[in-house]
Order: sequence, then structure tokens, then C-alpha cells
Amino acid sequence: MAAPSRSTCNVTERSFRERVPPLLTDLYQFTMAYAYWRAGRHQEHAVFEIFFRDNPFDGGFSLLAGLDDCLLFLRSFRFTEEDVEFLRSVLPPATDPAFFQFLRDLDCSGVTLRCIPEGTVVFARVPLMEVAGPLAVVQLLETSLLCLVNYASLVCSNAARFRLAAGPRRKLLEMGLRRAQGPDGGLTASRYTYIGGFDFTSNVQAGFLFGIPVAGTMAHSYITSFTSLEEVRPQTVVAANGDLVDFISLTKGWLSRVCELLGAESGKVREGELAAFLSYAIAYPQNFLPVIDSYSVSCSGLLNFCAVALALCELGYKPVGVRLDSGDLCRQSVDVRCVFRCCSEHFSIPAFGSLIIVGTNNISEQSMAELSWKENEIDVVGVGTHLVTCTKQPSLGCVYKLVEVRGRPRMKISEDPEKSTVPGRKAVYRLLDAEGHPFLDLVSLAMETPPEAGVPLSCYPLGCDNSAVSVTPAQVISLCQEMFVKGQVTQPLCSAAETRAKVQSSLQTLHPRHKRLQEPDSYTVALSDRLQNLVAEIQRGSSDDSNCVLAN
Amino acid sequence: MAAPSRSTCNVTERSFRERVPPLLTDLYQFTMAYAYWRAGRHQEHAVFEIFFRDNPFDGGFSLLAGLDDCLLFLRSFRFTEEDVEFLRSVLPPATDPAFFQFLRDLDCSGVTLRCIPEGTVVFARVPLMEVAGPLAVVQLLETSLLCLVNYASLVCSNAARFRLAAGPRRKLLEMGLRRAQGPDGGLTASRYTYIGGFDFTSNVQAGFLFGIPVAGTMAHSYITSFTSLEEVRPQTVVAANGDLVDFISLTKGWLSRVCELLGAESGKVREGELAAFLSYAIAYPQNFLPVIDSYSVSCSGLLNFCAVALALCELGYKPVGVRLDSGDLCRQSVDVRCVFRCCSEHFSIPAFGSLIIVGTNNISEQSMAELSWKENEIDVVGVGTHLVTCTKQPSLGCVYKLVEVRGRPRMKISEDPEKSTVPGRKAVYRLLDAEGHPFLDLVSLAMETPPEAGVPLSCYPLGCDNSAVSVTPAQVISLCQEMFVKGQVTQPLCSAAETRAKVQSSLQTLHPRHKRLQEPDSYTVALSDRLQNLVAEIQRGSSDDSNCVLAN
Repeated sequence: MAAPSRSTCNVTERSFRERVPPLLTDLYQFTMAYAYWRAGRHQEHAVFEIFFRDNPFDGGFSLLAGLDDCLLFLRSFRFTEEDVEFLRSVLPPATDPAFFQFLRDLDCSGVTLRCIPEGTVVFARVPLMEVAGPLAVVQLLETSLLCLVNYASLVCSNAARFRLAAGPRRKLLEMGLRRAQGPDGGLTASRYTYIGGFDFTSNVQAGFLFGIPVAGTMAHSYITSFTSLEEVRPQTVVAANGDLVDFISLTKGWLSRVCELLGAESGKVREGELAAFLSYAIAYPQNFLPVIDSYSVSCSGLLNFCAVALALCELGYKPVGVRLDSGDLCRQSVDVRCVFRCCSEHFSIPAFGSLIIVGTNNISEQSMAELSWKENEIDVVGVGTHLVTCTKQPSLGCVYKLVEVRGRPRMKISEDPEKSTVPGRKAVYRLLDAEGHPFLDLVSLAMETPPEAGVPLSCYPLGCDNSAVSVTPAQVISLCQEMFVKGQVTQPLCSAAETRAKVQSSLQTLHPRHKRLQEPDSYTVALSDRLQNLVAEIQRGSSDDSNCVLAN
Repeated sequence: MAAPSRSTCNVTERSFRERVPPLLTDLYQFTMAYAYWRAGRHQEHAVFEIFFRDNPFDGGFSLLAGLDDCLLFLRSFRFTEEDVEFLRSVLPPATDPAFFQFLRDLDCSGVTLRCIPEGTVVFARVPLMEVAGPLAVVQLLETSLLCLVNYASLVCSNAARFRLAAGPRRKLLEMGLRRAQGPDGGLTASRYTYIGGFDFTSNVQAGFLFGIPVAGTMAHSYITSFTSLEEVRPQTVVAANGDLVDFISLTKGWLSRVCELLGAESGKVREGELAAFLSYAIAYPQNFLPVIDSYSVSCSGLLNFCAVALALCELGYKPVGVRLDSGDLCRQSVDVRCVFRCCSEHFSIPAFGSLIIVGTNNISEQSMAELSWKENEIDVVGVGTHLVTCTKQPSLGCVYKLVEVRGRPRMKISEDPEKSTVPGRKAVYRLLDAEGHPFLDLVSLAMETPPEAGVPLSCYPLGCDNSAVSVTPAQVISLCQEMFVKGQVTQPLCSAAETRAKVQSSLQTLHPRHKRLQEPDSYTVALSDRLQNLVAEIQRGSSDDSNCVLAN
């Protein structure tokens, strides 16, 4: 396991335009943009906001991620001549050719983005990101921004839940590349699971691009590629003191002693497996961590491991540990630890007291949580499929809703109240109690005076039948920051490690009752009095307004 | 809805190296490659194969996809100096520097790939792809190949199931970009759902790269961006005969007549919605297909649609239809169709007899299947989240297993029989019955004589307690083809449309009992006598062999 030594942010930026071109969006964004343009409305100042309606995984919170990619996307947003020609071929023939010239000249120099910072704990129905600018442009951005935020936030939140289930000390390895939605799905998963609290990834490219520590030693195929000790070449290893030693003989000696100590039948020990372990240890005497369940842990893999590891110790090296990849990981880890302790004591090898046990076998959030109450000796857990595909809920329903046009608030009033939106440009304040725990997110109109610490305020919690409550915050944090103005990113982008640290500190302040994985207490999100009044006013007004369609 | 006019395969290839670099793999592939190299085994000829253990979605079949990307990956597989330097920073310091020179010179010129063709119906435990070449190289390819095949095959199979549920005539639109695993997840989803049987995608970039027809007209935000008829500019439209007509007055007249005909209250009709419809129709008089549920379908959206559409008809244009995006789509579609018929008859407008109704509201396989027995009038179904995230099973467990080294078969004999592998290089034959339906896939050793039509053969169905059966095929198809030899792709890559056609013809021959979405009859996969004997022999041999580890 090793961490890369340098940052490679430039690589990310260089390929960004190619990875997320402005055509990576839904066709209807272009047909709408054309209709706006045709009506001369394309330059009208409009504001959209992004939010989701339910916290993922039946949990009490989510993490916000993907923002940095959104900023890079906005910065690189520009159509190539090829893009425009393609659009010409797919838009209806009636499209005015001047529209394509408009597209050619388009960029995000008129767009402003305000956002809750990457890696912050967020809640359902809170506006996460506000995108303001010319109507046609901010409409075109919808799908790409949602695509960048949705999965990043989901998988980051999923990783945070695995981290909460695992407790703070166990090391977590992400290894889902082969089960993700293609190459970039895997890369996004590696990046945001690290940010969400994992320690390592198996994905080398993620290490290269994002500076995430990478880890891994061997698969079963490595073991099964060996059949006999004759395949071990060289058969010698240089000891820590420089002596050249016949490693096979040395190990065979240890194997006899281990079998005798443990009362194991040496006849069941697999020669191919021993050959594989020997070869690996000769290649990497300081990094010996084999997978030991290719045949049978107790009858072969564990014995072979102990023999090779004891030989390494005799030569002055420190073996690292073992990986278990099938069966009942908890029970096996206890048995394995027991053998390690036995060898450590019997042969007086202290290094055997600190060997690590890695467990990897289709780990789910449920099985991760079991590790906190089932007896086990697992130090590092590798998680793939359930982590990257978010089996428990494979998508986060972030939406992008219009809240203002030409300075006038806009609201979608649906027959389905869940689908109605909250109008107007907003500010979001996180109210903290005397212990420093957030207890309420206040969504107010942007123009309102911010709430003050120690001053009572009245507000309307969402989902509570429109009744007001009065609260007094001990502390108030303004959540949204301006991140992109006039074509420029105005905040420094953070490295994955920096955002990861922010995630942990943001989670730290959250009260345990909101962090509980099962049936958490729901966190309160409330509208300010004025915002609540605006909603009521528009709802009333709308029923009046609509009478006039056929009046004149 | 429009299809692009040209192929853009070159774009795909150009960016492939950047999208799937050889570092996009698990670190352990490199540590194993080093151990092989250190033991002088890296050039040994090895064979891996890819298969999955269970058909996805509790179904009776899967589709194989992602192969073309695998070929492009192999062709472009080469480390840059930057890649190698990064590997040097993450591999253990003990790694021999000469290994990095080995990596610098590496490519897939020694690799041969045999595979079942892209888009073929395949079954659990059948070898799908055989990757042969120098041990270290074919080991390095594992994760990337699995990543390229797993999700592509899964989402393609999912799309095929949605297609089976929808029946052959209903049009299907994929619109999952915003819910996929990041940008490339969305692109892969669009590509392979089209191949699996969808007709359109909303994803413009997928249209650009893969020639998939793209579709879409407007979102709710377009509707809510309008509040009054004053925002409609121009207020005129050029009729098909060239006359300039006051479109607002004309439509208002139609709205009165529609309200009267349907006994609807014009007072509930939303002016902003009407303004949005008018503006869109003025921009695209030949492509009028609005979303009609922003406020209320029956009280506003449908009335506004009919008014604008009737005005268009009067001007010589043919409106396209409507989209429903919430509520009970089946019931609403019936009501909407009823109104269309009523208008068609009452106003003698034949165009209203062929309007299409698009339904999009969190469609699952289940709700798609309901369309075949619930009364409805939905012509086009748009599917997003459930399609691209494959909620029913978000990953396909393809694995990459070593089956031969230096001409000698290899087998993983696990304590978990499910995880044991079948050794040796293989051929796969699909046996067809007299009606042309496949009834058995025979997995034999590559060197065996192929089965012949009309000649009985004995084989061992997998999962049937090792008892032999005798079958007589009416027709035999050899499934695997050589696709990549000595660094070159040896078969022409197919366009998405070509592969899509192959999928449908491959599915066509499959007996309905295997295609059933719920509780299908399981398809038989069998080992040839000789392969079965080899398995037994290795299992016996292994228990003898292992005694010798400590013997000498």
C-alpha cells in the first residue's frame, strides 16, 4: 500500500472538455434554448437551483459532491464547430440558422454559481446550488450539472455510511472499478468514496489523477498460475543483512514447524499456493500480503502464509498480513488471528503480533455494520459492488428547478404537492445549538437579513402542516458561497484529500441521532416567514391570475 | 425527434486512450505482473476467460456487450512515460527498475482475443471471451476488460428486458443521463440501451458519438418560465401557405371552442402554460409536443395543447403529440386520447387521430410490463433511472479466470463449489432444435471435434449432479470468433445500429420460455464429455499432488 507523491490536477483539467462536452446533455435543452432564443428571451436573467427531495438510503443526511467538476464544466463550456454542425443535423429543419451562430459564441461568462461547499453535510429540500445567468445558457447546463452532482453526492454519501458503519479506526479500501458503470463511473466512484471516508482505492488511475492512496497485492489467478515449487525463480532471497539465502528450504523448514505446532496435516498443503507465496515474497519481501483462501484457509493458505512469513522474519523482513476473500470473514479472521498469536508466542516473533487481516467478500453496509458487534479481527475491509453501485439506492434524485426570471420569482405549482417548488433566490443558514450541533437549516430569501446568534426567529419547518416554530440559534453559518463569476472560478479547488478532511469535520458536528444509519431522527429544514409568505402569495395569486387567459 | 446523418466512429477512437488508459485497473495487477516478471514467468503463454455465474435480473439470459470497446482498449494499450513514473511512485521501493523499462515497451501485440460477438444472447457460465498472451500482459488487462464488459452487458440486457416488457411496437426513449454514474456512465448507458432495443436517447453526445437517434422537446422549467401571453414573441406565425397569422388570437378562438366542446372551465386554464406552448409552436410549428402536466392535465395542459394544436392544423401544420410526466400515466393517456378523438371528430381534424402520447414518470420494468395489460394509449415511453442504474440488479458479476498456462490447463478448486472454475481452452457451440430455437450451449475443449447437426452427443449439463444426457442438435453454431490478433482488430467493428439489429435477431430465435421476464425456464449449459473428464481428472490429481510439498 503506497500513496502517490505528487498532485496531478492538470491532467484532470486537460481532459475535462473531452470528458464532459456541452453536448453531454438532453436534446430538449437545445429545443428549449431555441424557443427562448426565437422569442427573444434567451438573455433574460434566470435562476435555477439544485436540490433533492429525500435523503438517500433512508438516511438522515447526504453529502454534497461533484461541485469541482461543475466548475470545470462551466469554465470549459463552449461548442466546437463539430458540435454545432451535429446540432444542426438533429434539430428540426425549421431551426433558424442564426441560432447556430448564437451557439458558436456561447460560453458561461454570464453565469454565476453559488453553492454549498463540496463535502458539506446537506439535507433534503435545501437548495444546494444556485445557477444564475442568461435563460438559454442556464437551461442548457441542467443535465450536465445534474449528472456531475447526482452520482458524486450519492456515492460519497454511501461511502460515508460505510465509514460510519465501520467506525473510525478500521481501514477501508474501495475496489469497485470492475463493477462500476464503465471506466468513468469507476473513476468517479474511486474519487468520491475516498472523499466520503475511504482510505485507499485499488484504482491506479484514480491514484494518478486525484492523489488517492492505492492498494492491492494479488488475486486468486496469481495463485492458480503456479503448480509447483519448480516455478519459483529465483529460489533465493537477499536477507536484510545482505546474505543470499535458499528461501525454499528455509520456508519448508518453517512449514514443518508450523504444521507441527498447529497439529495440521502437511499433506493437505497446496504446493502451487506455496510456490505463489514464495515467488511473491521473493519479489516483495517487505510487502508480503497474500490472499489465503484460494484452496482452503485452514488446511493450506494459512499454513503456507505462516511458513513464508516466518522465513521472512528470520531474514529480517516484516510480513504485512493476509487477505480473506470468501466464506465467513469474521469467524475466519478470529481463527487466523489466533494462529498468528500462537506463532508469535511459540516462535517468539513479535512481528506476528501486528499482522493485518484484510477482508473482502461482497461487503454490504449491513455486513460492514455487523463488524461492530460480531467478534472479528479484520483490520482492513475492501468493498466493491455495494459501494460503487449503491445497491441500496442506485440514484440520487437531484433536480434543477427554475426559481426566478427577470427578478420575478417562479414556482411550479403541481397537483402533486411533492413536486411543487419553492420560488425565489435564496440564502441557506445552518443553525447550531449550544453544543455546536446543527439543528435546523433555514431557507430564506436572499434579500432577507441573516438570522443572528442568540436572537429568536420564527420559521416554517417543511413537511409540518404550515405551522410556525420559534427557535434561537447559538450559532449561525451561512452555507452558500459564490464559486463561479463571469466565466471564472472564484474559489480554489480542493484536492481530494482536503475535501475528504472537510467531509469528516462536517460529519463530526452532526448529532449522532441524525447520523444513525437506521431510522435516524429527521433533521429540520424550514422556510423563513417571508419565504413562506411568498409561497402562499404565489399560490393565491396563481388561482386569481389564471382567470384572465380568455378575458382579453 | 431526429436521427443524425453521419457516423462519428473516429471521434470515439481518438479519445479512447484518454478515456480508458492502461492505468485504469487495480493496483494488484501491477504487483502480480512484477512478481511474474521477477520470476521470469511474464512471457509464459497464459489464457484467461470471462464469464458470469448467474443471469442478471433473475432472468433466463443476458446480452454480451462492450466487446468493441475491449478491442479499442487492446489496440491502444500502451503506457506513457507519465504512467510509468506514476507506477514507480506507487509500487514498493524494492521494485527492480528494469521492470519499468519492461512496462514502457509493453503493448498487446502478443495478445489474441476470441469472443462471442457483440450483441449475442448469452448464458451464465458460458465462456464469453478468451484472452490469450504473455502471462504478465493478460493479467494486466483483467480489470479494464471486466469494467468494459460488465456494465455494458448489464444495461444492454436491462434494455432488452424493458423492450420485451413493452412489446415490439411501442417506441422507447432512454433519458437516464442525469441519473447515471457520471458523464461516461450516462454515455455508456445511452449506447447500450439503444443496442438492447431502445429507439431513441435524450443524450445528444451519444447521438454525436454513436449515431443514435436523439429525441426530446421540453421540460417543466420551460413552462414555468412563462407567466403571461405578453411574453410570446413574435405573436405571429407563418402558415404553411406563407401567410403571416396572429397566432395568439387564432389559438384563443380555438381554446374557447375546445372548452365549450369539453365543458371545461376556461378560468382554470394557465396563461403561462399557454404562452409557453404558443412560443414553442411558433419556434417549431412542425414539432409541437409539449409536456402537459405542469399544472393540471385536464384543467389546463390538455386544453392548451388542443387549442394550440388545432390552430397549427388550421395553418397547415401537423402537431406531434403530448408528454405526460406525473400521476397515473395509463388512465391519463386514455382520457387524453378520448379528448383527441373527440376533437378530431367534432372539428373534422384527421391529424388529431394520429397524435402520439409520450409517458415518462419513473418507469420501472414492472410498470412497463403493466402497459401490456392495463388499458392505456401510450405510444412512446421514456425511461431513465431504473434503466440506467439497473435498480433490479445494479451489477453483473463477470469474472476473469485463468484457465491455461504454458499449454497446461489451470483450475481453481475452491471449498465453495460455486467459485471453482472449468479448466482449459474452450470452444462454445450453440445447439438448435428443429424449430431453430437454441436449446443447449455446449462448452468443449478447443481441440475437440465440433458437434455435428443430426448426430447425437453426450454431455454434462452444469448444475445437474454430474449426470450425462444425450442430445441431437438440428443445427450447430460455433459461437466464438477471433477478434484481435497480434495487436490488430481482425473483425470490422459494428455501428450501434448494426449491433442493435443483431441483438434483436439473436433474441428472436430464443424460445419464449427462456425470454419470460418472470421465472423463465433455465437454459441448459453443458460440458462435453472430455471437458467433464478433465475437470474430474484435475480434481483427483490435485488431491494426490498436494502430498508432495514437504516430501522432498
